[in-house]
Amino acid sequence: MALAEARVRRYKWDVKYEFKSPDCYKKLVITINGRSPGPSILAQQGDTVVVEVTNGLVTENLAIHWHVIRQIGSPWSDGIEGVTQYPILPGDTFTYRFVIDRPGTYLYHAHYRMQRDAGLYGSIRVSLPDGVAEPFAYDYDKSIVLNDWYHKSTDEQAVGLSSIPFVWVEEPQSLLIQGKGKFKCSKLASPTLDPAACNATNPECSPYILTVIPGKTYRLRISSVTALSALSFQIEGHKMTIVEADGHYVEPIEAQHLFIYSGETYSVLIKIDQEPSRYYWITTNVVGRNDAATTPPGLAVLNYYPNHPKWVPPTDPPAGPIWNDVAPRLAQSLAIKARQGYVRTPPHKSDKVIVFLNTQNKINGYFRWSVNNVSFTLPHTPYLIALKDNLHHVFDQRPPPDSLQDFTNYDIYRVANNTNATSSNAIYRLKFNATVDIILQNANTMTVNNSETHPWHLHGHNFWVLGYGMGKFEANNDPKKYNLANPIMKNTVPVHPYGWTALRFVADNPGVWLFHRHIESHLYMGMAVVFEEGINRVGKLPMEIMGCGETKGFKRP
Amino acid sequence: MALAEARVRRYKWDVKYEFKSPDCYKKLVITINGRSPGPSILAQQGDTVVVEVTNGLVTENLAIHWHVIRQIGSPWSDGIEGVTQYPILPGDTFTYRFVIDRPGTYLYHAHYRMQRDAGLYGSIRVSLPDGVAEPFAYDYDKSIVLNDWYHKSTDEQAVGLSSIPFVWVEEPQSLLIQGKGKFKCSKLASPTLDPAACNATNPECSPYILTVIPGKTYRLRISSVTALSALSFQIEGHKMTIVEADGHYVEPIEAQHLFIYSGETYSVLIKIDQEPSRYYWITTNVVGRNDAATTPPGLAVLNYYPNHPKWVPPTDPPAGPIWNDVAPRLAQSLAIKARQGYVRTPPHKSDKVIVFLNTQNKINGYFRWSVNNVSFTLPHTPYLIALKDNLHHVFDQRPPPDSLQDFTNYDIYRVANNTNATSSNAIYRLKFNATVDIILQNANTMTVNNSETHPWHLHGHNFWVLGYGMGKFEANNDPKKYNLANPIMKNTVPVHPYGWTALRFVADNPGVWLFHRHIESHLYMGMAVVFEEGINRVGKLPMEIMGCGETKGFKRP
Repeated sequence: MALAEARVRRYKWDVKYEFKSPDCYKKLVITINGRSPGPSILAQQGDTVVVEVTNGLVTENLAIHWHVIRQIGSPWSDGIEGVTQYPILPGDTFTYRFVIDRPGTYLYHAHYRMQRDAGLYGSIRVSLPDGVAEPFAYDYDKSIVLNDWYHKSTDEQAVGLSSIPFVWVEEPQSLLIQGKGKFKCSKLASPTLDPAACNATNPECSPYILTVIPGKTYRLRISSVTALSALSFQIEGHKMTIVEADGHYVEPIEAQHLFIYSGETYSVLIKIDQEPSRYYWITTNVVGRNDAATTPPGLAVLNYYPNHPKWVPPTDPPAGPIWNDVAPRLAQSLAIKARQGYVRTPPHKSDKVIVFLNTQNKINGYFRWSVNNVSFTLPHTPYLIALKDNLHHVFDQRPPPDSLQDFTNYDIYRVANNTNATSSNAIYRLKFNATVDIILQNANTMTVNNSETHPWHLHGHNFWVLGYGMGKFEANNDPKKYNLANPIMKNTVPVHPYGWTALRFVADNPGVWLFHRHIESHLYMGMAVVFEEGINRVGKLPMEIMGCGETKGFKRP
Repeated sequence: MALAEARVRRYKWDVKYEFKSPDCYKKLVITINGRSPGPSILAQQGDTVVVEVTNGLVTENLAIHWHVIRQIGSPWSDGIEGVTQYPILPGDTFTYRFVIDRPGTYLYHAHYRMQRDAGLYGSIRVSLPDGVAEPFAYDYDKSIVLNDWYHKSTDEQAVGLSSIPFVWVEEPQSLLIQGKGKFKCSKLASPTLDPAACNATNPECSPYILTVIPGKTYRLRISSVTALSALSFQIEGHKMTIVEADGHYVEPIEAQHLFIYSGETYSVLIKIDQEPSRYYWITTNVVGRNDAATTPPGLAVLNYYPNHPKWVPPTDPPAGPIWNDVAPRLAQSLAIKARQGYVRTPPHKSDKVIVFLNTQNKINGYFRWSVNNVSFTLPHTPYLIALKDNLHHVFDQRPPPDSLQDFTNYDIYRVANNTNATSSNAIYRLKFNATVDIILQNANTMTVNNSETHPWHLHGHNFWVLGYGMGKFEANNDPKKYNLANPIMKNTVPVHPYGWTALRFVADNPGVWLFHRHIESHLYMGMAVVFEEGINRVGKLPMEIMGCGETKGFKRP
């Protein structure tokens, strides 16, 4: 695409709290220009996106992350408080400016403590340059964001997680499809002090209805921003063909259920070829956790045009897959390969291998999540500023471990004793342009015989998914089974119970990048690491990320 | 007192949210070092107080105001976001440092949006210099802070107030005496999702018990930080003698009820001279608003030593005064004069008179409170910084009106039509050392035949209370009735329904000072003005108030 064609897409967003009832229960929701999910960003590859965000929250700061946008040349626009910027104060306006370097299906969401859970999220859809065609055909293109939904405020959740005794966030109260869900108000047993707190007939919680034209093919861009839940997604009576994952073309796979983890995006094609006089359920169910009793499936409606769009399907919603059957989920992970003709082969060898053992620990009586026995804490001066300005005192300068010292003898099937777990804000400083392998090793939680599926998300990069395995990673054998022929590139990847996932990426994007579990509570409890690469190649930092209010432009004396 | 004797009192405060049940209902409460009310500050006149505040809230900024400390020479320590400092970000530590220039009974509390309501408050008790005696005798000295208590979060309250349709905060759920109240859990009708949300047997809501020694005299320092409520306070079977108000000695008055408005502090003396075998109620009731049905009285216990401190009195709590009887409240206001021998007479004439008509308005569909038809909004760059650094664009440079243009013809008994009400962040710039009279004129609210009692609080100064009157202030006659002989000096003063209150102060404290109604919701809705005086005499601003995190020390390029 000629540079001359690149456009600037400008958005002005007012972010504030409003009382909304996405699942019929009224609570404070963070809206963008009055909406949650916020406005979709539609752009073309090569466009520059400029989003002027005004923080109209009452007392809370804010930062917004552009999920899967690599921020090449603009690492300060990644939107991570403590990593790439100071947060945006109430009353302040901050301008994010970045180039969209790849086509595909992306997301944005809040990235300040657990604020994503409060409803600040939306979709980004990036089209191909003019004259370039997708490798598959479709007539219409729709974005659907999935979410799980909690009635407690994010501060109530966060305070519980960092309390002694520990208060878990519990299972979500409902699942939202494109911002709409249905909580059974009768579960509240009787009115609280506010009788209007739950209203099943509130139009804000009427189901999302996707009206489609018979005979046409639809591209559905499905993404998940759940706080906790792994999901399955299906459309009653319609097969889906997976064609894109995290912005990369997939060798087409037919699927009845799409399994999707928080932070992932997929495109599926569906043919509108069923009996046109009726309606079909669109459903999403929790998998991987046994919360069927507490979290009802998320329901939406596929409506064949020109039927009246308000009727509901005549059938019961189809059942979801068995929640604890890992096999089909692992099978989907393994089946997703780069599409023929679009394979970008990885470097054959890596320069560095890091094994990240994921464990749940107790540190000073607090429940924490740890990588190699180190639980991550954020400094409050962003790394990007600290590194560029040589503020060495801001974070622990000692490198964190590349693997658990005694990984060989570590029993992943036992509750960790982890007597030596610590908290740290130390970071991994990678050699610029190095090829790095990451092995994510799952293990038992603090509960006997329990290990769960968790998604990990890398900022600033796409990585190759070299392989998944069950059990403990064996450094001598498992790498021989890596798929170096046609691995998919992704940005978010699941790690299955008691399993491992192997990734490879090239540290070629100057900046400071978070790599973390895409579960709000787990990230808050320390499940993250930070990579730095090529900091000396990062351009002059914009003053806007530096401070707050009118002192933004102030300089070091 | 010799300067050499002055001490430095150092405090380290960790501020965070914790789940607490001050009135048996569990909610997020802002604590200092685990407590709400926070630790008392005990100091001696002339001491320097240094409070190192670490903001451990999750997402919210913070600022703390030292209520009635004049901050002579340290206007940047007044703790008002938008006026004297940028707020303290989560993770940041800010050091307040100020000299306590007068003995007496003071307060501290959060001063950022409506955060005071979340529980960040406490008492400051300042003793006389060594060798100087109080003009009254007592054996023991106790501080009791009164508060009203809401179950909604401060953000939920604030968002409702700034919504269309308007959502009023309603009456408080309970009254707290020294941080303890009793909400009837049965009012919740049946459990919400969280069955532990309300627990009448939680020790956190056991009543405050004041154990006293028969035959002794107690000085009780009673103060109020209510969000909304005007209160009466009484001790069953015991007369109180009012001896101090807002840090100034009062010509002693006997009282059965002490009427106290938010932001006021009083000292009363009580003799422990009743039947020693029993217990007595300490009660506080709402006056001025008809919320007896919704807000039960606050109850504590006066326990005669050595009785077992857990028993409750054998009687029903005494009834409070009639809620809408203004006469005894006005009588208390009028009765409070400076104590003989401690009278500081005011300047006989003033250089400037400002009449502040208080009205409730609608501006662009939003309910607002206004002074002379101008509803106050805070800029987000603090005035102190903007004025010192000549950032003229930060706020409206045009002076706000010294009175309503047509005040003479304004009918205070009618609902305001106020078609010309506006919002503004303009400020009053006073001539340094000028003597200024303020007339606070009450009027009808937006409700027909309704006017309420409201306290106003001035930062940075003590003022003389020259007079109170009912009806509309008459500039030609009312000043003739001013008490210039022995007016009390105060910092917070009530304005009675359809009445006026006249104050005089000398603008002799270089800085920028908020003057506002001490009701959280009304301040949030614009009921404030700002005075500037002697800005050119303000010393170099500490960099700490300037920005956030490590950029604090950065300077204008």
